[in-house]
Amino acid sequence: MLIGTKRVDEYLISKLQELKQEFPDVQLQCGDDVKINEVEILITSSITKEELDKASNLTTIIFPYAGVNNLPLEKIKEKNINLINTHAHAPIVALRAVTLGLALLGRVVELHKQLEKGIWRGFDATNNWIALLEKKVGMLGMGAIGLHIAKYLEPYNPHFVTLSRYKEKIVNNHEWTFYDSVEEVCLNADIVFISLPLTKDTKGIIDKNILSKMQDKYLVNVGRGELIVEADFYDALKNNTLKGAAIDVWYQYPTKNSVTPPSKYPFHELPNVILSPHVAGMSDFTNKLVADEIFDNLSYYITHKRYKYVVNLDKEY
Amino acid sequence: MLIGTKRVDEYLISKLQELKQEFPDVQLQCGDDVKINEVEILITSSITKEELDKASNLTTIIFPYAGVNNLPLEKIKEKNINLINTHAHAPIVALRAVTLGLALLGRVVELHKQLEKGIWRGFDATNNWIALLEKKVGMLGMGAIGLHIAKYLEPYNPHFVTLSRYKEKIVNNHEWTFYDSVEEVCLNADIVFISLPLTKDTKGIIDKNILSKMQDKYLVNVGRGELIVEADFYDALKNNTLKGAAIDVWYQYPTKNSVTPPSKYPFHELPNVILSPHVAGMSDFTNKLVADEIFDNLSYYITHKRYKYVVNLDKEY
Repeated sequence: MLIGTKRVDEYLISKLQELKQEFPDVQLQCGDDVKINEVEILITSSITKEELDKASNLTTIIFPYAGVNNLPLEKIKEKNINLINTHAHAPIVALRAVTLGLALLGRVVELHKQLEKGIWRGFDATNNWIALLEKKVGMLGMGAIGLHIAKYLEPYNPHFVTLSRYKEKIVNNHEWTFYDSVEEVCLNADIVFISLPLTKDTKGIIDKNILSKMQDKYLVNVGRGELIVEADFYDALKNNTLKGAAIDVWYQYPTKNSVTPPSKYPFHELPNVILSPHVAGMSDFTNKLVADEIFDNLSYYITHKRYKYVVNLDKEY
Repeated sequence: MLIGTKRVDEYLISKLQELKQEFPDVQLQCGDDVKINEVEILITSSITKEELDKASNLTTIIFPYAGVNNLPLEKIKEKNINLINTHAHAPIVALRAVTLGLALLGRVVELHKQLEKGIWRGFDATNNWIALLEKKVGMLGMGAIGLHIAKYLEPYNPHFVTLSRYKEKIVNNHEWTFYDSVEEVCLNADIVFISLPLTKDTKGIIDKNILSKMQDKYLVNVGRGELIVEADFYDALKNNTLKGAAIDVWYQYPTKNSVTPPSKYPFHELPNVILSPHVAGMSDFTNKLVADEIFDNLSYYITHKRYKYVVNLDKEY
């Protein structure tokens, strides 16, 4: 069994070599040595349609992230290739979401910038920072990320609000309220955490209609930028029909090392926004979690001839 | 019983009026109507020696914060006045500490400032943000604030390190390691949370000797500035012998509305520092917690002729 990996972080390579020792049938191609026309299993964060056409032995793509929306899904489906993504970094993305949410309510960036200038803010009783204690927390997305966000927030006695369809996923003891629509979740929360995948069904799921009613509410988006309609999002923040947002996922991305604003709208000029450069999964702890999951999944496949988890290409996640 | 309150937030006044209805013996003076020579119990965040000399009926000062180091303690002791402080806002200060710690390790301010300029950072595998997961967390101070910090961090599977003298306070199930010295706690942690009171014994407790050995470590200070030797702290951050710090408590404070840097050293020029303008207790949720505790303590006093908690003026906390 020939496994190729375009991803060459040290820990992953050591785990793949461990796999090879455990299962002598395994062969490895790494980095630039990967021959796309030979490998059966490919670990990669990107692949083109042209490469897929050449990949005559390929049965499985292992994608070391969660959101598969930038892969050529139609082609992968047509060629009947297994697509495996990972949820191993969900605890990391969730931690980023919680960090951004706390920093947003805590006005960390705003107060830091003022104190850089010797100006002390935050003492006006009508304009204190907001403590995420005993607040109503909206959850849009209750996959591995959402479940971790909820776990991290538990010590703050939140009251969670989310969609009815997630009801079966809720196992902890906190109070939860369920609503049938995204709008009801947003309008019944003090802060909303968005960790949905981007699919045909979720694109633009949050628009002017919802944002215009969130005057005293906050949003944290670690899902994908296009879940929220770009122009509507900017307008709502600019006009304070939405109180504030912390945003890790964007509408424009840089080509290699170029200077690129994250949107065609000047989000970066707004005082009620924390900008994060799509690094939710990029922590010191991520590679280990991802490589451990890939090792585990491959071991399972070799033993059981099936994977623990495969992306549903119709649902796109 | 005549109670005066210099503090006049709406919720506190409503609670004091509730107290008056419950105990008809209670009389109230509020804000500018407080006559220092008449009141028996005074709720205030500041008092001078001269005022104390005039306060012939005063038996009790209720101070609506935790750190009493700026009050004229000798005079209060000499006049045999009860000093009550509050730990009601400990959950808030702890939340601020955790928020600052996560923002520091998450490089929230640094990455925000870069992305404002269209620069995307945080992707270099040798320089990712640090996830506060399964880390060694040093705790200096295990009063109400420290206990809340530990509670909030529990979902991140920390390994806590702290001083041996706090051993009896530890009730949760996580692994704790105890050391006899402040230095050992600092050098055996990835991030250290400081919530100590400022006393004769704790002033300058962290100095060059410790800071010069913290190359890959982080500090969060929500105690008091002078716990850490000012010049040593600046030098360590400037020279990266300390990796980073988030600081809510300072060495210089503004007079009313003046522009005042928080230190005579330019901490505000350092990229590895998050500045917070001593707002750890100043959230939307604080006044309610403080007023509820004052109400509770006064009710208890009226019924039992003693307070639930009085500051030990020899220990200064």
